[in-house]
Amino acid sequence: MEKRIGFIGLGNMGINIAKNLINAGYHLQVYNRTLSKANELDPAYTTPCKTPADAASGVHIVITMLTDDEVLKEITLGDQGILEGLPEHALHISMSTVSPETAEQLAALHNEAGSHYLAAPVFGRPEAAEARKLWICVSGDQHAKDTAKPVLDCLGQGIIDFGEATGGANVIKIAGNFMIMASMEMMAEAFTLAEKNGLDRAQVAGFFGSTLFNAPIFQNYGKLIAGKQYEPVGFKSKLGYKDARLAFKLSQASETPMPLVNALHSRLLTAVAKGRGDTDWIEGISRGVSEDAGV
Amino acid sequence: MEKRIGFIGLGNMGINIAKNLINAGYHLQVYNRTLSKANELDPAYTTPCKTPADAASGVHIVITMLTDDEVLKEITLGDQGILEGLPEHALHISMSTVSPETAEQLAALHNEAGSHYLAAPVFGRPEAAEARKLWICVSGDQHAKDTAKPVLDCLGQGIIDFGEATGGANVIKIAGNFMIMASMEMMAEAFTLAEKNGLDRAQVAGFFGSTLFNAPIFQNYGKLIAGKQYEPVGFKSKLGYKDARLAFKLSQASETPMPLVNALHSRLLTAVAKGRGDTDWIEGISRGVSEDAGV
Amino acid sequence: MEKRIGFIGLGNMGINIAKNLINAGYHLQVYNRTLSKANELDPAYTTPCKTPADAASGVHIVITMLTDDEVLKEITLGDQGILEGLPEHALHISMSTVSPETAEQLAALHNEAGSHYLAAPVFGRPEAAEARKLWICVSGDQHAKDTAKPVLDCLGQGIIDFGEATGGANVIKIAGNFMIMASMEMMAEAFTLAEKNGLDRAQVAGFFGSTLFNAPIFQNYGKLIAGKQYEPVGFKSKLGYKDARLAFKLSQASETPMPLVNALHSRLLTAVAKGRGDTDWIEGISRGVSEDAGV
Amino acid sequence: MEKRIGFIGLGNMGINIAKNLINAGYHLQVYNRTLSKANELDPAYTTPCKTPADAASGVHIVITMLTDDEVLKEITLGDQGILEGLPEHALHISMSTVSPETAEQLAALHNEAGSHYLAAPVFGRPEAAEARKLWICVSGDQHAKDTAKPVLDCLGQGIIDFGEATGGANVIKIAGNFMIMASMEMMAEAFTLAEKNGLDRAQVAGFFGSTLFNAPIFQNYGKLIAGKQYEPVGFKSKLGYKDARLAFKLSQASETPMPLVNALHSRLLTAVAKGRGDTDWIEGISRGVSEDAGV
Repeated sequence: MEKRIGFIGLGNMGINIAKNLINAGYHLQVYNRTLSKANELDPAYTTPCKTPADAASGVHIVITMLTDDEVLKEITLGDQGILEGLPEHALHISMSTVSPETAEQLAALHNEAGSHYLAAPVFGRPEAAEARKLWICVSGDQHAKDTAKPVLDCLGQGIIDFGEATGGANVIKIAGNFMIMASMEMMAEAFTLAEKNGLDRAQVAGFFGSTLFNAPIFQNYGKLIAGKQYEPVGFKSKLGYKDARLAFKLSQASETPMPLVNALHSRLLTAVAKGRGDTDWIEGISRGVSEDAGV
Repeated sequence: MEKRIGFIGLGNMGINIAKNLINAGYHLQVYNRTLSKANELDPAYTTPCKTPADAASGVHIVITMLTDDEVLKEITLGDQGILEGLPEHALHISMSTVSPETAEQLAALHNEAGSHYLAAPVFGRPEAAEARKLWICVSGDQHAKDTAKPVLDCLGQGIIDFGEATGGANVIKIAGNFMIMASMEMMAEAFTLAEKNGLDRAQVAGFFGSTLFNAPIFQNYGKLIAGKQYEPVGFKSKLGYKDARLAFKLSQASETPMPLVNALHSRLLTAVAKGRGDTDWIEGISRGVSEDAGV
Repeated sequence: MEKRIGFIGLGNMGINIAKNLINAGYHLQVYNRTLSKANELDPAYTTPCKTPADAASGVHIVITMLTDDEVLKEITLGDQGILEGLPEHALHISMSTVSPETAEQLAALHNEAGSHYLAAPVFGRPEAAEARKLWICVSGDQHAKDTAKPVLDCLGQGIIDFGEATGGANVIKIAGNFMIMASMEMMAEAFTLAEKNGLDRAQVAGFFGSTLFNAPIFQNYGKLIAGKQYEPVGFKSKLGYKDARLAFKLSQASETPMPLVNALHSRLLTAVAKGRGDTDWIEGISRGVSEDAGV
Repeated sequence: MEKRIGFIGLGNMGINIAKNLINAGYHLQVYNRTLSKANELDPAYTTPCKTPADAASGVHIVITMLTDDEVLKEITLGDQGILEGLPEHALHISMSTVSPETAEQLAALHNEAGSHYLAAPVFGRPEAAEARKLWICVSGDQHAKDTAKPVLDCLGQGIIDFGEATGGANVIKIAGNFMIMASMEMMAEAFTLAEKNGLDRAQVAGFFGSTLFNAPIFQNYGKLIAGKQYEPVGFKSKLGYKDARLAFKLSQASETPMPLVNALHSRLLTAVAKGRGDTDWIEGISRGVSEDAGV
């Protein structure tokens, strides 16, 4: 079995995924905009590369974990991009949160070039990535999924197949992030209502998180929202806003009116407009609710 | 220990609660608008009464489980109402979903009359009531809570104390129903987005319900929303609308802007305006989302 | 012709209306919470009264111009209220902005007492009241309208008849105030969009006010919104919020989903929650738009 | 003075503009996707062309009036597009409703090619175009405005200068169309509220249109909305939706949260999703309000 793969994108998520791949015995050809990030990886299993094309050269699999559609397109299609280096028949596993439209466009270009593209976005915060607890959603053709499976098995607690259409997994990722944001807004509103009626936010969060809403999302975010504990910054408001935009755009493209997406888009756009793009998205949402209520 | 108590309100919830009280050895003085409902209860432990005052006569505890603020006020304060029958020092345990404002008003009137009022709204569908799995939220003075405890212990899996202020538990109940409705809307939007992008609603619901949103709310409602399965009717849209109004009114009274409450209020108001007040609230919400999307 | 009438409510609007009645030759029996306000009126034509009942005694017409439903009800139905003084067959002309529900309730109570009630809310700022430029909307039975006509003719530039149903004119008044608020929000959003794109707010307001939107509402409010000129305070945000609540309540009562009413209710509730209830409603709306945009 | 100019786009608006140019003595080199439309023009003053490049050849001015950003870009930049034919130093007067972003992109490309681009979007329905009653908003460099002036003077009742920045006039056009749509929604909501409270829609529209809202927008649209008179189709819902998208996109690009834009975007997206994209935008908005209210 080929154990050398390309890996591009060493952000909070990517770095943890890369470590798990190395722990599983893979040797990584790494590219990152700030290449020094690669120093955190075991040098015996790491080959730093100066371009995405270099990282993709000679391997049968390259993985990307990048910020948004524009960066992914640039890294893939740009000068010295992945498509210039990736061998024929090789596979690009794309784990970023991007639109299905971008996924379809990139898949078509890989096909033209004789290579393959697999959408494989994930659910989970950096800690989940580190603990190999990601949920990995895949969509695309079966052969690509089979090729990717041994690699993805090292990274998460489950691989869920959303069919043959290229962008299916991207739709799920966008829908899921919308649901997470809606859950945060819902809690922020409910806790603020309780606070303004003389109740203790922490008790309210604890009650719902241990009874009707006893899922980690509500327990973990609930605790932070109840405590108005917005640091350290895990996921920035401006990235949350990006995801709200993806959801909005997808609702436009598929003609699906979504009032809650509207509400969240407004919430995060307001946070960004007020200069809070770099705060945690929990703050972007929860502080907005509090301020509107004058507390 | 006194085992004779008053019980008023034999709707879907009340009838199951009454049965559990009888199973626990209580004898019930029962009043219901449609008194024939009392025939479902063991006659050896049931005394049907012609008025709320009769049901409240000579007992140390009377329990009410009624539709809304207006009915509760009429049953309590009206001609031949509870306050005309309830002995001095006796306790009214009020399990209905009503506003904290109504709770405070009734508590004051009980105090004037020398009796007591305890807010004790519950979370759980009729099945949960039957299975003694309710979550019971209480607020008010400690003595009332102590008196109510042995009775409430027969009915739920937990009693949660939200403090001394009369209406605290009502605030929690309203906040919780809002969160349930927001969860339904969120799922309806997400599943419809997925559907219009070629995915299978049931798979999407199954995925979220078993991973990020693995709480019963998302699993149970999720399955029904995914399948557009709106019958049998469990909880009517017009009652959901009533709860949305309670949330809206509370947001006004406490000056707490809540965009998601607005969205849900509009959703259910639209369902009622379209003549769907008697459908299940799942239909009131989910069908609204589908129709707006043209599917 | 009887030239002695009762007049209750000497706020910004009422005082100007009262002056015009005196100018028209009427003698006023005046009641106001702060009775010293009556000193602004010509003493030869003014009889200050200590209670609403006194102001209504012995006249065939009493006019009220009050803040809201609660005050109108208290003044009419309370101890020493209008109904205790108003002679049989006399007419109460109610010019306040109140709900049709309140109007119907009061009309019924007047009928029981042998007197009459006419809804006659007005459009126009205090300057319009002073200049006898009010638009007066009336609804109710024909006899009451005939009786009121000579008095109302002294106050406005037109009396518009909205039918026999008691509350029709109140519906129009609520709908109109909603349209005014929506116009302000619309302009605030458009001007802020223009500002953030490098254009001059004043030029934009001037353009629209002199072309497509060449109505006084857009010209006058437009200029103030463009200039962010929020003082002096003409009509308070908390009164605007009251009107938004009236519109919202009416939309509930008549099952009419109104998304723009929702948006305005949120806008003004937020202003009030932030402690800006006493600012002009132009500020309550326009500053909210600006702040959300970070300018 | 050169009296030969290029003219591209013979839709409802373009055909009337073209006629007025011919009436003013211009000879037009015409291109339209459906070229037979040119038969409606006086053949003595019309030269039909097979490509945009042909229409732009040898003239000092070419005018475009097209559906949206994509069509304008294709006509300008595509194979046999305007830029392939337009002489050096010549001017492209762009009257379409497009984003400022598109305007800036096209202006830059014209500059590179040695020619000029002027944003000149207009307000007015086809009847206004026919009657030379358009309001023409321009932005860009002074020389281009001077060149365009004699031509534009033949077409409207006023030319308003929104500065040197290329896209300023586009911002105004987008803001204005938003205000028109918001006015329609506002009226539809108010009239439906009145209708459900037993009033006559036509009387309500007549009252507001002749008093507070005595501007043509409210009078003309108000009459159609009151009468639910949705035919003939003047401006399609799908074009209204396009404009709502432009407004939404601009609010994103300039970080300006706009709740009313959200509401209108949802309204028209719903109309399109329900298969009503080809109805008049008055129907797209007004019928949506009615249906949500169950009437």
